[in-house]
Amino acid sequence: MNEQAFLLPGERIDDLQLQGLRIIQSPDAFRFGLDAVLLADFSAVKPGWRVCDLGTGTGILPLLLLGRAHGDLFCDAVEIQPDAADRAARTMLLNGVQDRIAVHCRDLKDARAFLPHMGYDLVICNPPYSAENSALHSPRAGLRAARTEGACTFEDVASAAAYLAKAWFVFMLPSPRLAEAFDTLRRHRLEPKRLRLVHANARRPARLCLVAARRDVRPGLTIEAPLIVKTPDGGDSPEIRRIYGLAEKEENI
Amino acid sequence: MNEQAFLLPGERIDDLQLQGLRIIQSPDAFRFGLDAVLLADFSAVKPGWRVCDLGTGTGILPLLLLGRAHGDLFCDAVEIQPDAADRAARTMLLNGVQDRIAVHCRDLKDARAFLPHMGYDLVICNPPYSAENSALHSPRAGLRAARTEGACTFEDVASAAAYLAKAWFVFMLPSPRLAEAFDTLRRHRLEPKRLRLVHANARRPARLCLVAARRDVRPGLTIEAPLIVKTPDGGDSPEIRRIYGLAEKEENI
Repeated sequence: MNEQAFLLPGERIDDLQLQGLRIIQSPDAFRFGLDAVLLADFSAVKPGWRVCDLGTGTGILPLLLLGRAHGDLFCDAVEIQPDAADRAARTMLLNGVQDRIAVHCRDLKDARAFLPHMGYDLVICNPPYSAENSALHSPRAGLRAARTEGACTFEDVASAAAYLAKAWFVFMLPSPRLAEAFDTLRRHRLEPKRLRLVHANARRPARLCLVAARRDVRPGLTIEAPLIVKTPDGGDSPEIRRIYGLAEKEENI
Repeated sequence: MNEQAFLLPGERIDDLQLQGLRIIQSPDAFRFGLDAVLLADFSAVKPGWRVCDLGTGTGILPLLLLGRAHGDLFCDAVEIQPDAADRAARTMLLNGVQDRIAVHCRDLKDARAFLPHMGYDLVICNPPYSAENSALHSPRAGLRAARTEGACTFEDVASAAAYLAKAWFVFMLPSPRLAEAFDTLRRHRLEPKRLRLVHANARRPARLCLVAARRDVRPGLTIEAPLIVKTPDGGDSPEIRRIYGLAEKEENI
């Protein structure tokens, strides 16, 4: 297969080290990072689930979830930016999973117009960071739209999720916004049920929150063990190594 | 001084190991534990502050805060149970701090009737646990009132705090109720600003939340480093030793 046929100038293919899956990324655009890997791990996705990814970007989350569900998953992935949506769609073709993951170049604020009401076991989102909390001030529009709320607000995302999810809405956001997010979720009858905090190391404040909310259930939150990224000496923590599968691979050498 | 003169039958005096302060406790009633020590540490109290403790029980929180403020603090401590309020008042006499800490045997739901509007730098509360989340089913009325919401709800406490606090409202509660508590706070214009989670050890879910909310400020939450109680081998963690002042004392031996 001529992989170059899938690429536009400047793009490259990265190996996800997960069941042979690969992803097309552009160095000029937002590339997936640790966040997506942590969110996929937190999602607790199960084989056979129907998933909707709001603001899929490169398409990384559906791919990671597909890998975790051993290939047994259907996903509608929504992306408003045409170049990112096109790249994500070509990534699915490259992996031969276009029948499993459908990329829609649409505005998630219009979700009611083209996606089914309560059609998904899991709605997932790595939502845009607020401008206030982002250190990123890029002149490139694609980067800015992926990192700030120019395109939509958390209220928009929660509203779409409340329409689409029959069970879980899983997302991450910067820690400073947690209280507001809980408010927004509960107004949409999405009850926060699991929370996990991501700390750069055990002595630092949390940087990110991983949140799982569920439709129409009783209150009661489980705050899981903290997710510590680095050990005191600056290496990857045992849990990060587990999530990336490093420990397992090294044991097999 | 004849200390026995301060005691009723069955009561005893415990040394707080903090600036010579002592506390009268009854083995039959609720005794202070780790929670109060963690909450006092989290409160960030400063000398000169005016404090109101809602549901003071033995009076442990005002004493710990007075110690941390180097004796420069005024506190109104509210306790609805007559025997507990009487014991707390005698504890203040025993320590000679009755001019600093006033114990009011009143219902905190009536706070507007006897305490000043926005009169306190810090309103603090180690609120009753919900019946659902408590493993305690004691036949003794005093214990039950201290551990369940028979006497008042978190809504009652937040409402009183919103009336009394000119700045901070600091409290702890079981982790499962965090989302509801954030909702309640924000309805009372108390914005969650600091959150710290207490974990029995680094691999366990959080048991308790320490929350600091502030009146009429912009949203933005700092989630502090997790407070881990035990090391993997079951000993007290370095931070617990710091909070109790053990490390310092041992260094001085």
